[in-house]
Amino acid sequence: MNKIITIGREFGSGGRELGRRLARELGFDYYDKEILTAIAEHTSLSEEFVKEVVEGRPRQLYPITVNRSFMYLDTQPIQQAGAVFHAQQEIIRELAGKSDCVIVGRCADYILREQKPFRIFVYADMQSRIERCRARAEAGEKLTDKEYKQQITKMDKARASYYSFYTDLKWGDKLNYELCVNTTNQDIPTLVTVLAKLFQ
Amino acid sequence: MNKIITIGREFGSGGRELGRRLARELGFDYYDKEILTAIAEHTSLSEEFVKEVVEGRPRQLYPITVNRSFMYLDTQPIQQAGAVFHAQQEIIRELAGKSDCVIVGRCADYILREQKPFRIFVYADMQSRIERCRARAEAGEKLTDKEYKQQITKMDKARASYYSFYTDLKWGDKLNYELCVNTTNQDIPTLVTVLAKLFQ
Repeated sequence: MNKIITIGREFGSGGRELGRRLARELGFDYYDKEILTAIAEHTSLSEEFVKEVVEGRPRQLYPITVNRSFMYLDTQPIQQAGAVFHAQQEIIRELAGKSDCVIVGRCADYILREQKPFRIFVYADMQSRIERCRARAEAGEKLTDKEYKQQITKMDKARASYYSFYTDLKWGDKLNYELCVNTTNQDIPTLVTVLAKLFQ
Repeated sequence: MNKIITIGREFGSGGRELGRRLARELGFDYYDKEILTAIAEHTSLSEEFVKEVVEGRPRQLYPITVNRSFMYLDTQPIQQAGAVFHAQQEIIRELAGKSDCVIVGRCADYILREQKPFRIFVYADMQSRIERCRARAEAGEKLTDKEYKQQITKMDKARASYYSFYTDLKWGDKLNYELCVNTTNQDIPTLVTVLAKLFQ
């Protein structure tokens, strides 16, 4: 059976970089944003919409209290979100069946649970995440610490609700991962050199 | 500076065994229960009392609401508990200054925070912890799953309150550790062989 490593990560924790470098270090395939493209192709939905569902705010698609009759509730977005998740499942299973790989996000830990992937969760303290966000910001982006914190909290909330909606598990709960890695004050390349040893 | 690894662990997670084996694998000194003996010697308190304070229920020593005049509150246990913690601090700092080592429990992660120890937290799901407790039970001990669960919950609660009392941090919170390791369905000796690579 292929070796599969899944990476869940807090926004700004450097989890994506960690996953990408870990895959390179181990010679594994690496899947992240390309999954979105594949889902879009699979479902004929726009990549933008897929991104919104997968990374975004699925809750908006499922109003709990609506100020109008249920009969009028437009269920199309719900069906589309469901289609996205199903396509995601199929694609992730297909990729995991092909070769040893590292998959970042996308509930891959849950989708592949029967294959027993090695599940890593990457996290860091808020200050360290703010600094990571600032370091990777595009030129001209000048946000205050408070603004970064708001962005980080919002992204984490979206990830948590997407994850718990589809898996019925609590995102970031230690019990859902084999290993939780704190990247506070850590240099990701150095960390990856060490972590890679676990799989060599 | 010496390499210091501290291990926090949920009751029944195999954290102590993991720490002991990790120390052996790395050729590090290992400190666990011997710290209690040293504290008892240091404070002239009985080892039994020290154990009760360090592993037990410090909250009982600090009633928040007492149904009698404050004047009558017997402060001796409080002072003794304080003495235990101070002796513990001194002893742990002394041990950490002597050689590379693994220290299990005893708020060592917090006490040694300036030395930047590598802080590991070991945890597992309830069923796996119940099975570990049963496997290591003394002959004749026949507890039901429910009874083990009660014991585990009680021990964890005591550890959590001791830890948060002295450190003002949340016991088991990912952010207080470099690495959190899930031992659910894991064979500890195998796991240690892999983990040891992180330090070699």
